[in-house]
Amino acid sequence: MKEMPLNNPKEISSDGSFKRQTNRFTTPFGNQEGCLPIEPGRYRLLSSPACPWAHRAVIVRKILGLDQAISLGTASPIRPQIDRVDWEFSLDEQHLDPVLKVRYISELYLNAEASYTGRPTVPAMVDVTTKKVVNNDYFTLTNSFETVWAPYHKEGAPNLYPDHLRKDIDELNDILFHDVNNGVYKCGFAHSKHTYESAFDTLFARIEQLEQRLEQKRFLFGDYITDSDIRLYTTLVRFDAAYYTAFNTNKHLIREYPNLWGYVRDLYQSTGFSDTTDFEAIKKHYHLSITINPVQSKPSILPKGPDLTGWDQAHGRESLSQSEKKFLFDKES
Amino acid sequence: MKEMPLNNPKEISSDGSFKRQTNRFTTPFGNQEGCLPIEPGRYRLLSSPACPWAHRAVIVRKILGLDQAISLGTASPIRPQIDRVDWEFSLDEQHLDPVLKVRYISELYLNAEASYTGRPTVPAMVDVTTKKVVNNDYFTLTNSFETVWAPYHKEGAPNLYPDHLRKDIDELNDILFHDVNNGVYKCGFAHSKHTYESAFDTLFARIEQLEQRLEQKRFLFGDYITDSDIRLYTTLVRFDAAYYTAFNTNKHLIREYPNLWGYVRDLYQSTGFSDTTDFEAIKKHYHLSITINPVQSKPSILPKGPDLTGWDQAHGRESLSQSEKKFLFDKES
Repeated sequence: MKEMPLNNPKEISSDGSFKRQTNRFTTPFGNQEGCLPIEPGRYRLLSSPACPWAHRAVIVRKILGLDQAISLGTASPIRPQIDRVDWEFSLDEQHLDPVLKVRYISELYLNAEASYTGRPTVPAMVDVTTKKVVNNDYFTLTNSFETVWAPYHKEGAPNLYPDHLRKDIDELNDILFHDVNNGVYKCGFAHSKHTYESAFDTLFARIEQLEQRLEQKRFLFGDYITDSDIRLYTTLVRFDAAYYTAFNTNKHLIREYPNLWGYVRDLYQSTGFSDTTDFEAIKKHYHLSITINPVQSKPSILPKGPDLTGWDQAHGRESLSQSEKKFLFDKES
Repeated sequence: MKEMPLNNPKEISSDGSFKRQTNRFTTPFGNQEGCLPIEPGRYRLLSSPACPWAHRAVIVRKILGLDQAISLGTASPIRPQIDRVDWEFSLDEQHLDPVLKVRYISELYLNAEASYTGRPTVPAMVDVTTKKVVNNDYFTLTNSFETVWAPYHKEGAPNLYPDHLRKDIDELNDILFHDVNNGVYKCGFAHSKHTYESAFDTLFARIEQLEQRLEQKRFLFGDYITDSDIRLYTTLVRFDAAYYTAFNTNKHLIREYPNLWGYVRDLYQSTGFSDTTDFEAIKKHYHLSITINPVQSKPSILPKGPDLTGWDQAHGRESLSQSEKKFLFDKES
């Protein structure tokens, strides 16, 4: 990794498989010594509508009503240059984030560590007082929002990470990460036939298992949306519009799996999901912009499909649920 | 066109649209003065399993039993080099066609016309006595096989181009050519957003009209397979495996249209269709090999999907037909 320039890292192993870089800034949020202090107004969540890892944090922030406590900065889905794997605030006036006054997210990583040589990623939690990235650990960030940030949840916020399910949610999240969330990237970025096909088989075996699981359950853990559903959603919502074509995950479209297709629309039609989902940005990023593997760059014409009209149509999954509510509320449970 | 080298022609208009080159060798087969004489054993049909234009001739030759009268040479689906839009006999021993003893199809075009600057295409009918391409007119070639080549049809060959339907077949074939057969190429090779989207809209409007037409009719003209069905088949059978991804024709998969999906499987499950359809070759050509637009070249890993298991499954379209037979036989009609 050390030989790789900041703007074009390669995360490809000698067997051709994609090995995602580990997150550099993982100090947890919390009230204990050594943790990042919980202070409303102190942090800015940086996202891009293209990125599934950032999207999960954006959804949870919205559902829990943390938008008053944690502000949101949004980078363009289009990479700044063909050979620069960075995120740019080109959607903002003068191409600058209005709070942090920087153009590229890499600047905030270099503020945090001048010798940072990894890929600058979103989500990134930035301390607005120092303009440094303090946490880019997408794997635990939503759980932080759900637990230690609870004092700043909106009135009546749902419980996405209930105590009695945490062990099961953590276990499933780990599976979802390896086989699905990162699984699509393992397909798309593989540099060898063997590692691509292996990731493809693992991905679709897991998708077909999830299709079965959702035959009887409205959501992954039953009647209520949990943190795991949000993690699965961010991959499923990008699947037909991007991964199927751009990452060669083309055994079946998600809309060809009746349970998954109903399930993902059920989520999409809930507050926090459709209002944070930008299909145009997703398509632009994966089809037009730079991937980690420039060989896979696409022609400069954006595919017009797929047909997205089905996303708002009735899904009929209410009957699987014993509750009228999609969320668990502690006060009532 | 004259400035373009033989091995990398561009057929892109100033507005960015794809304009397919016209066929250079269009002298018809027939018994009249000036026609190419009908002689069994004199001609070799050159094809590649990737090519839909050649595939239609290969299917008709097979259904009519012209294989004794016209031999078949098969070029690789993979172009010889990244910048060489030619067809190579690399599937044959020593990379030479066993009859014509040439390596590249371009050689036979240059034999016919030393100044030929077009793209060497299949299907090509080659006079084995001169090793010259004498006809590369895919638009009329199947009709020649169906009419003037009738003396060499097998015993009991069906009538794919019955007199009473010829005018209607010709009209539909013209529509199919512009909107569907060549329509997918207009999408895939467009160099501007406007011309891509225009071709995309035309293509799917026609597909949706055909989906309606096939709601009540088993085949395009009712109970029997005609020349038009073969022309539509060669595009439909490549659609999900190649065009959807490689040519950005991604509104819907063909298998998402119930009537077209049943229809194309009904054809696939007939003699002359599945036995001339090579999905692996189709996938390799469109995903790995050279297109007319090198920008669209794909990564060197072949997509594993789509799932092809459905092609052999029951289609249930027999009930739309008043006949047990799929073909019209003159002796019985």
